[in-house]
Amino acid sequence: MDLSAYEPLFYPRTLAVIGASDSFMKFGGMFLRTILNHGYTGKIYPVNPKGGTIQGLTAYPSIEALPGPVDLAVVTVPAAQTLAAAAACGRKGVRGLEVLTAGFREIGPEGAALERELVEIARSCGMRVIGPNGFGVYTPAVGLTLMPGVDFSRESGPVGFISQSGGGACDVAYMGAGRGVRFSTMVSYGNGADLEAAELLRYFEADPRTEVVGAYLEGVRDGREFFAALKSCAARKPVVVLKGGRGEMGNRGTMGHTGSLAGTQSGWKAALASAGATAAEDGPDLVDCLMAFCCLPGFRGEGAGVLSGGGLRCVEALDWASAYGFTAPLLRPETEARIRALLPPAGSRSGNPVDLANPVMAPQVIVPAMGALAEEPEIDFLVLYQMLFYLGNETRRMGGVRLEYHSRLAAAAVELRRRTGKPLIAVLPEIGSDPALWESERGRIEARAHYTRNGIPCFAGSRAAFSTLRRVADYYRGREARSREQGERGKE
Amino acid sequence: MDLSAYEPLFYPRTLAVIGASDSFMKFGGMFLRTILNHGYTGKIYPVNPKGGTIQGLTAYPSIEALPGPVDLAVVTVPAAQTLAAAAACGRKGVRGLEVLTAGFREIGPEGAALERELVEIARSCGMRVIGPNGFGVYTPAVGLTLMPGVDFSRESGPVGFISQSGGGACDVAYMGAGRGVRFSTMVSYGNGADLEAAELLRYFEADPRTEVVGAYLEGVRDGREFFAALKSCAARKPVVVLKGGRGEMGNRGTMGHTGSLAGTQSGWKAALASAGATAAEDGPDLVDCLMAFCCLPGFRGEGAGVLSGGGLRCVEALDWASAYGFTAPLLRPETEARIRALLPPAGSRSGNPVDLANPVMAPQVIVPAMGALAEEPEIDFLVLYQMLFYLGNETRRMGGVRLEYHSRLAAAAVELRRRTGKPLIAVLPEIGSDPALWESERGRIEARAHYTRNGIPCFAGSRAAFSTLRRVADYYRGREARSREQGERGKE
Repeated sequence: MDLSAYEPLFYPRTLAVIGASDSFMKFGGMFLRTILNHGYTGKIYPVNPKGGTIQGLTAYPSIEALPGPVDLAVVTVPAAQTLAAAAACGRKGVRGLEVLTAGFREIGPEGAALERELVEIARSCGMRVIGPNGFGVYTPAVGLTLMPGVDFSRESGPVGFISQSGGGACDVAYMGAGRGVRFSTMVSYGNGADLEAAELLRYFEADPRTEVVGAYLEGVRDGREFFAALKSCAARKPVVVLKGGRGEMGNRGTMGHTGSLAGTQSGWKAALASAGATAAEDGPDLVDCLMAFCCLPGFRGEGAGVLSGGGLRCVEALDWASAYGFTAPLLRPETEARIRALLPPAGSRSGNPVDLANPVMAPQVIVPAMGALAEEPEIDFLVLYQMLFYLGNETRRMGGVRLEYHSRLAAAAVELRRRTGKPLIAVLPEIGSDPALWESERGRIEARAHYTRNGIPCFAGSRAAFSTLRRVADYYRGREARSREQGERGKE
Repeated sequence: MDLSAYEPLFYPRTLAVIGASDSFMKFGGMFLRTILNHGYTGKIYPVNPKGGTIQGLTAYPSIEALPGPVDLAVVTVPAAQTLAAAAACGRKGVRGLEVLTAGFREIGPEGAALERELVEIARSCGMRVIGPNGFGVYTPAVGLTLMPGVDFSRESGPVGFISQSGGGACDVAYMGAGRGVRFSTMVSYGNGADLEAAELLRYFEADPRTEVVGAYLEGVRDGREFFAALKSCAARKPVVVLKGGRGEMGNRGTMGHTGSLAGTQSGWKAALASAGATAAEDGPDLVDCLMAFCCLPGFRGEGAGVLSGGGLRCVEALDWASAYGFTAPLLRPETEARIRALLPPAGSRSGNPVDLANPVMAPQVIVPAMGALAEEPEIDFLVLYQMLFYLGNETRRMGGVRLEYHSRLAAAAVELRRRTGKPLIAVLPEIGSDPALWESERGRIEARAHYTRNGIPCFAGSRAAFSTLRRVADYYRGREARSREQGERGKE
């Protein structure tokens, strides 16, 4: 695959905004403002028949009037004017179009015809089309977001993301921000008239900047082509898919949103599993999966070593670990004794789970207890529950030990993983969500950002933690099995 | 049932803390501090052999030395000393014991024998026992919390709660605080040596201050007795049960936590369903159910009218509504036209769901659109998605319209419900959870508190919303059907 063909689309050096405006109530005004405020590193040409100055930049009356070459043209004019704009871009030698405008396939046969014409014009001029009815790209490496996320992270990362929903892509970008999920490129491709799921998966499979792939899909153009691309991509990189439109009612939703025929849920489920992709259940679950794949490459864990303060959470951990097929191996007596010696006698338990007796036990206790658990041969990973709400209470009284608390735990976990290969997983439930106590929620959000930056995935509860870990382990085990199978077939 | 027998336990006018201390590292010190700081309205007697002054209060060397009668004695001394303390309380004529101390049935046969002796002593003196190995009670009406929640809400409310986990009860109290869930009494009864699930359910069934009942259970003393009490209670009030210990591994957890034999998951599931109780999946789910039962008494809704800004969320709403057996009725053409006239032409849809085209659409649009949906005969309830993160962005720029925004929507929803009987349900996803953007999370938490105070339940996502609504509707429909059946049997 020739990756360089996609550079002008995803890493454009020059950008034309067709329909640029000074009014923030117009899409062309909003887009331009976002591009400027986010800090795009390339050159921007506002295009508006009136010319003059728009948002402080020299505006040009037409595409053809632009002084230099254009990688990507952003089309924000009404649907009826998009064909003329596309033709003008073709004459100018523009490489790609991002068509934000809605009013195509999703509104019915008339829109579908307009969409076909748009693609024909673009193809005849050698241009690619993102959209229509999509937000386009977010590429932190060039400081570009066409999506309305002026405060998206400016850091690049290993996740490539494709979405038929622009708003959904924004949600994922924002949710990912505080969970250590950083993106190579996000593509909101809407109706997918030209660039579409299968091709984008092939691109991310080949892209060396991308290690994990995420997708929000409503429907695909060609099921067979999509399945082949998905299977090929998943054989090299984890692919997490959230499928929108899962029944008759959902189909009604997707037809009106992106003109996609959603298909049946059971069919999709089977296809994703057979391709070796990971199915997500909703937006937050999708982000949890991306976070876990980023933090835990190669994870195949089976035995959990659990540390928690409090009986309910110990029981809950065992319930959900077991529900998702993990074990919590019993400790050898010497390990149990080592842990017992660390704990306060009242209310603690030194088995697996280790009940720390206190939701905010000190690092001096947690760190050696983690070490003891990690030395158990049957324990593959550690799960630490922290009720940061109570830590919030403590720190309010004791004065700001919070950051030190987390950084000591995170540093110890990083060192333990380096030494033993056994990762830590954190569970930080949202408890103190009363407005009067919001400081504790803030502490939780800060802790999560700190842990995930250190490769420690953080979940809001046991179900989320173990269901996500199950899928990560299944992915790597499944990939290994498929690759072994192929190797054996090759020998025959 | 003689409710007055429980008044000294749950609404004590006088309290003795046996093992009171000045040291906050000791349970007797922590407990006393919490009781004092939370603002208990009754009389407190610290008991410590040394006498003197403890935390500013006159301390007494023994129970017998106390100057007045005692409703409830809180026992925090080590397990070996609890029998003597109980005997002394008996001699004094104390009405009830709350035994915080661990080291009873949950540690094995020796502890079980001690526990039996404790109960025998108490019974022989006409005292009731809460615990051992439990935190005791939280009763806002008398400003009392024995649980470590100094900042628990001081407001009373309609939820009675019982828990075998003290930490779990605290989590529920805190999670409930920001979600409009207020409590009549919470009882953390630990091992349940005397007061136990069945009796507590009978109490809450009879208690006029309690309208909704919640429970975290690990095991029950007598299955038949429990089932009868549960069925009887659920016939009058919703009962939401979170069952801890759902498999072989979970049993290991509960045996060590409260000495409970957890039983099989399938057995419990069937028993809860047959009794007409509602099963919760984990802590946050339990609180969502309590919130929904508080906000939506009598809810039997079937047809949802959905309002959302953005395609993914519209699709997701239909997917989950349908997964949980709800419908999203198509609108009559005149209603669709009315809604269309309200919306911006670009990116909106006027069907059901209504795509508002913007995650922070103005109340001037949302309120009349809600009104139009509510007039559809097949729509029973409204679901409004709000991406408060984007509202946070907007208000940062526009300057503090946030509270007015929510109070206008909430007021309109309250009025609409009064007029049509159709309630509003809000979905407020956690999107902007980056530490750099925590203000938006704060806004979400504030909005949730405001909506729930106005009887509008708020969920973090579609799955949580529709799965909870399903259980609320099932409860009321089931109760009606069972009561009809009984009536018919009565006639035979």
